Amino acid sequence: MKMKLGAKNCLYPMLTVLVGAHVNGKPNFITIAHVGIMDLGSISIGMAKAHYTNAGIKENGTFSVNIPSVDLVKETDYCGIASGKSADKARLFEIFYGGLKTAPLIKQCPLNMECKLIKTVDFPKHDVFVGEIVETHCDDRVLTDGVVDFAKVQPILFAMNDRGYWKLGDRFAKAWSVGSELKTQ
Amino acid sequence: MKMKLGAKNCLYPMLTVLVGAHVNGKPNFITIAHVGIMDLGSISIGMAKAHYTNAGIKENGTFSVNIPSVDLVKETDYCGIASGKSADKARLFEIFYGGLKTAPLIKQCPLNMECKLIKTVDFPKHDVFVGEIVETHCDDRVLTDGVVDFAKVQPILFAMNDRGYWKLGDRFAKAWSVGSELKTQ
Repeated sequence: MKMKLGAKNCLYPMLTVLVGAHVNGKPNFITIAHVGIMDLGSISIGMAKAHYTNAGIKENGTFSVNIPSVDLVKETDYCGIASGKSADKARLFEIFYGGLKTAPLIKQCPLNMECKLIKTVDFPKHDVFVGEIVETHCDDRVLTDGVVDFAKVQPILFAMNDRGYWKLGDRFAKAWSVGSELKTQ
Repeated sequence: MKMKLGAKNCLYPMLTVLVGAHVNGKPNFITIAHVGIMDLGSISIGMAKAHYTNAGIKENGTFSVNIPSVDLVKETDYCGIASGKSADKARLFEIFYGGLKTAPLIKQCPLNMECKLIKTVDFPKHDVFVGEIVETHCDDRVLTDGVVDFAKVQPILFAMNDRGYWKLGDRFAKAWSVGSELKTQ
């Protein structure tokens, strides 16, 4: 039976990422699961305006998106609990840089995207930063035949509804393929 | 070992949804996995400008976001293959409406959100429609103690990298909790 939940956001689970930025000249990381894909080459991160990291992204026009595996769940959760105002969260990670010198990347995360800020979409209490991906770094161990294999990445998915972290399950069907049999012509 | 992949979007897997809209006065559905969360109450769908559905969303200022379960994978994939220009995709589903009379909802999907278009973010080849969720409909069978249980929803996750559909795995940790032990004070 259908029932009404009110205006409840159920667009979950979403991928949990560690967003990196330089704030006051130092690398800082924050956990964000309110992410999105805009077009093929650009992605969004929705960040409450109260966060410490927002000013650094605005100042430098750069940020990184690092995708942690399930074995980093404690560090990932911690970066969503502690604020860079008072905690040095970068101490948890081995950091490296690509071409953007204010987009710190986390070595322990199997996937890292360097992003150039191209738009900021304003919401009453949130900045949605849209970044163009300029380079992606990858652990070679998560590739299968040269393609990123999410079974090896083991990303952390997040649902607000139960405030839970979820694992990825199995790949079970091929896109632009499995539905072909429903074509009428 | 880290290697560079170029500017490769790896923000996957993402939730696969069926977006509903009225186009030329008739309900139509399109499969989108380039979705996002902007702030708590609003979500985005990134849709190539060439799609048939975009004009309907712009005309009516409404759309729906329906979350299919894995047992709807054929119908879901088909709605990403066939165009509403030539195919009647609504024939596949039992449709109902909430308060927005131009946001068709799919009964077979366990979660349905009615959205009012509040922003359109323009990209060279994509419209990113941002919708404020105004009502959410839910099958009571996917609730556990009154909360949406994604183990029951069985959403379809999508990765562009391998063009694959993936299942959700297990809930394995509690957010704003599992990382507390890393606090230094």
